[in-house]
Amino acid sequence: MKKTRGKIPKTRKINREGSYNVVRIGASNNHWRDPYHVLLTLCWYKTLGLISFGYILANALFALAYLAGGNGIENARPGNFLDVFFFSVQTMASIGYGAMYPKTLYANILVTIESLLGLMGLAMATGLMFARFSLPTARVLFSHVAIITPYNGIPTLMLRVANERQNWILEAQVRVSLVRTQITKEGDLMRRFYDVHLLRNHSPLFALTWTIMHPIDESSPLYGVSTEEMVEDEMEVIVTFTGLDETVSQTIHARHSYIPKQILWNMRFVDILSKTRDGKRSIDYSRFHDVMPIDN
Amino acid sequence: MKKTRGKIPKTRKINREGSYNVVRIGASNNHWRDPYHVLLTLCWYKTLGLISFGYILANALFALAYLAGGNGIENARPGNFLDVFFFSVQTMASIGYGAMYPKTLYANILVTIESLLGLMGLAMATGLMFARFSLPTARVLFSHVAIITPYNGIPTLMLRVANERQNWILEAQVRVSLVRTQITKEGDLMRRFYDVHLLRNHSPLFALTWTIMHPIDESSPLYGVSTEEMVEDEMEVIVTFTGLDETVSQTIHARHSYIPKQILWNMRFVDILSKTRDGKRSIDYSRFHDVMPIDN
Amino acid sequence: MKKTRGKIPKTRKINREGSYNVVRIGASNNHWRDPYHVLLTLCWYKTLGLISFGYILANALFALAYLAGGNGIENARPGNFLDVFFFSVQTMASIGYGAMYPKTLYANILVTIESLLGLMGLAMATGLMFARFSLPTARVLFSHVAIITPYNGIPTLMLRVANERQNWILEAQVRVSLVRTQITKEGDLMRRFYDVHLLRNHSPLFALTWTIMHPIDESSPLYGVSTEEMVEDEMEVIVTFTGLDETVSQTIHARHSYIPKQILWNMRFVDILSKTRDGKRSIDYSRFHDVMPIDN
Amino acid sequence: MKKTRGKIPKTRKINREGSYNVVRIGASNNHWRDPYHVLLTLCWYKTLGLISFGYILANALFALAYLAGGNGIENARPGNFLDVFFFSVQTMASIGYGAMYPKTLYANILVTIESLLGLMGLAMATGLMFARFSLPTARVLFSHVAIITPYNGIPTLMLRVANERQNWILEAQVRVSLVRTQITKEGDLMRRFYDVHLLRNHSPLFALTWTIMHPIDESSPLYGVSTEEMVEDEMEVIVTFTGLDETVSQTIHARHSYIPKQILWNMRFVDILSKTRDGKRSIDYSRFHDVMPIDN
Repeated sequence: MKKTRGKIPKTRKINREGSYNVVRIGASNNHWRDPYHVLLTLCWYKTLGLISFGYILANALFALAYLAGGNGIENARPGNFLDVFFFSVQTMASIGYGAMYPKTLYANILVTIESLLGLMGLAMATGLMFARFSLPTARVLFSHVAIITPYNGIPTLMLRVANERQNWILEAQVRVSLVRTQITKEGDLMRRFYDVHLLRNHSPLFALTWTIMHPIDESSPLYGVSTEEMVEDEMEVIVTFTGLDETVSQTIHARHSYIPKQILWNMRFVDILSKTRDGKRSIDYSRFHDVMPIDN
Repeated sequence: MKKTRGKIPKTRKINREGSYNVVRIGASNNHWRDPYHVLLTLCWYKTLGLISFGYILANALFALAYLAGGNGIENARPGNFLDVFFFSVQTMASIGYGAMYPKTLYANILVTIESLLGLMGLAMATGLMFARFSLPTARVLFSHVAIITPYNGIPTLMLRVANERQNWILEAQVRVSLVRTQITKEGDLMRRFYDVHLLRNHSPLFALTWTIMHPIDESSPLYGVSTEEMVEDEMEVIVTFTGLDETVSQTIHARHSYIPKQILWNMRFVDILSKTRDGKRSIDYSRFHDVMPIDN
Repeated sequence: MKKTRGKIPKTRKINREGSYNVVRIGASNNHWRDPYHVLLTLCWYKTLGLISFGYILANALFALAYLAGGNGIENARPGNFLDVFFFSVQTMASIGYGAMYPKTLYANILVTIESLLGLMGLAMATGLMFARFSLPTARVLFSHVAIITPYNGIPTLMLRVANERQNWILEAQVRVSLVRTQITKEGDLMRRFYDVHLLRNHSPLFALTWTIMHPIDESSPLYGVSTEEMVEDEMEVIVTFTGLDETVSQTIHARHSYIPKQILWNMRFVDILSKTRDGKRSIDYSRFHDVMPIDN
Repeated sequence: MKKTRGKIPKTRKINREGSYNVVRIGASNNHWRDPYHVLLTLCWYKTLGLISFGYILANALFALAYLAGGNGIENARPGNFLDVFFFSVQTMASIGYGAMYPKTLYANILVTIESLLGLMGLAMATGLMFARFSLPTARVLFSHVAIITPYNGIPTLMLRVANERQNWILEAQVRVSLVRTQITKEGDLMRRFYDVHLLRNHSPLFALTWTIMHPIDESSPLYGVSTEEMVEDEMEVIVTFTGLDETVSQTIHARHSYIPKQILWNMRFVDILSKTRDGKRSIDYSRFHDVMPIDN
């Protein structure tokens, strides 16, 4: 009995990050209309870097404005950029040591503007931080490969999902679709979706692992389809997962896709649920992706 | 083969902004009971202007209050409005340089009140900023026109939607309704909604474009209806779109309506999906709204 | 033709505020485990009053603590409560004029603690403000009375709902239940809910008004029930409304109940939709609740 | 007639806290990838302790950095850790009394960094506070035991739920599943879920109590199953509850599980709904969990 660790081919239409191999012509990529979207998709390092850069830049601009007003800050050396820059920091962050303070009308008006900008910047940063912080993230693991194996005499497409967190996912729901490229009678190129029937697509409480099963009977769009046909029609099996993360009370979503190379025939998943000697159930996640040939 | 770019008539019952051409009698337009609604519908410029105005106004009022208490601020010139105004700014924004500071009980009490108001104002502004920031916005494009064209021998109402963002929309759902004005047997004027059957109203993963199709068979409320009848009964085809924006994990909604002038007979949408020479799929959004006559 | 304005009896089981006339024995009313719930249900005046009171109290307690440490604040008069109280305000609100400042280790430690408490209090107040601010509020109006009137030859229970806001409610859904008191065979007293069939319970776009209709046919739990029976069994018609407020992208909920006195027989609602001379549709909300006898 | 107060056995697979008695092998418990999850599951004391510790630590680190720059803070005693620590507090919390202030470039740069970190820390703490504050919490009570008792001649599994809050839960939904350990034909150990049919699984308005009933007819997975079989197959009855808390407009979730020991045969729940002398309905929550033998 040879164990095969499922390999993941690099080429597929979708991946976890949600990019896809389609050339877009004529579509505007105007990120600036979606600052919120952009900020939420930046990594943490870039987000913090952007905020820091904005903070330094804003203070530098205010420093220049203070300089432009002449000698308006008490105890700042006239014409010294660094002095008014640090004065600006003390103002925008609302520290106000008072060793430097505005003494002219011009400087006072600038302080008024800067204080308002500082408060609004803080409000925005807070909103953004919270949005980033609370963005629901699913840590749902999909098996690297799907298998097709007889189950109750019917060839059945199977894949495994696992909850990587140590909590419960309530009202978990799984949907599997088959997408294939087709040429319509009018000669158009089309990607069509087919819903696929599952033996069980809902779980009220999902904590550990779940094997999703689609019987390939006559009603299945995979009925009688060979691996060659799958490749030719650029078929993909798309799995979407939805559930309620009990810890944060947020709906989480995950998805995965399997291209023909990742769908293995006549293999089965290695058992990972067993009983320990003291009667407890135990689960071995280290073999979650492992498959082995069926014995027949 | 002549290509026709769909024109958009200006008159229709609903539009993206959600106003509608109905005269409301006796309905209170009491915006003040809905400050949150009003603030969320203001444009960014007006929102920022409103906040700035409120900030200046509040500081001016406190300045007057400080003046009313006599000479209570150390280092402020007695009776000088600007001095106490800037002192108020330094207090409300919690800067507190200390060049000016309260020296009487009256001024200290005012400072206490102002500090609390400043903190609560900051809390409110933060909440509002976040709400504005995180308001889910759908960037779903609807074709400017709908068409009626034979599909598998049945006249079929078709329209196209596209995701303007470069991300995935999960569990996308489309609903199409027909609304028409009718006179009931009792002589009442009524706007009635009819649900309309779609060949496919759900997509687990929506990234690019989707053609929505309603076959006009005997069960359809559009069966046997001519453009003239459509105009006479003030018919509108209303399309609502719902889905989960994967980037922000928010449910987004979009809607569109087509009046009879925007429903074209015996046209078809120009193909925008094609294969590039190196075998990649490509989509040409610049022709998304384009239609052309069917060849027959 | 006499017009009758529907009167609203004062006694009913539920009302908009969600209290109900049932005596609860043995249930803990431990509000303190639900501070968030309590704070969200307080009116704005009480919320602001509570926050202000907490602010004053916290500063007073810190003032006492500063006093207890002896003469630790520079420029505060020894033993003077007001001086250290205002110093505390300047610290908690992070103003820090600097006219008073801590000079002993004890005072400095207190300042450290107070600054942290101030920041966390601000964080909490901000969270609370936002939650209060963004709590979705439905402004859906239910007609004061429901009517039972023939419609297509079948006696039909009707009631009206209206959107009080000038926006759209998407995917509006209405559910009507009948609740009645029953004695089970075992002699238990029971309040049972019956779902009630509606001619149309969903509207993709709800902007103005909507007449909800339940035909009282043999399958209806109201079939053959007289007003007397309704009173005897303490029947109530409960209406729940759900929809998506397009402006704020929030799901809103509203509900209403009708007791037998509010269900009028052989009346009909006054028309409020009409055409103006220039062909526009017009709606007269001032007569929304009005009913009149049917002509027969 | 002896009253039996249902006892709660300590051993069961799931509990309110969401831990479960399964050994996980090979699963990463990498909490650091889920700081949000961890912070939301900590109790309030630990959360506040963690924030306080972080605040002290950050200020201590900045104090060391100020010291490393030599004598950069005016009025701080050279080399004195406490002085620069308190200066750091005054800076991070943006108090800035000004008795101490930065006088060197090095110190000013540190102040700039610290002010930004202070603002971002405040933003994060605010986001976290709000998330903690607004986490929807269900206070739904499940009866300690479930019972099996004849109802209309059919043995029926019953359990009770109650709303512990004095508000309404809208669109309440209950789902009951049976989970049992099975050995598949291939010899695998499996935990299988079975959905269970309920007489009523939905309530438009849930305020007080609700008895959930599952008739054990031929279609039930409990049909003909004895307590011994239940124990042997490690059966559990899992109940999940979903609804909309009207006060906070949040969807709440609750769940409970019953192991065989908690499922009592031929008992019934004690009546808790009755009429007071003045005709009001009354509910006695103190006997909510109580059961008594049926009379036969």
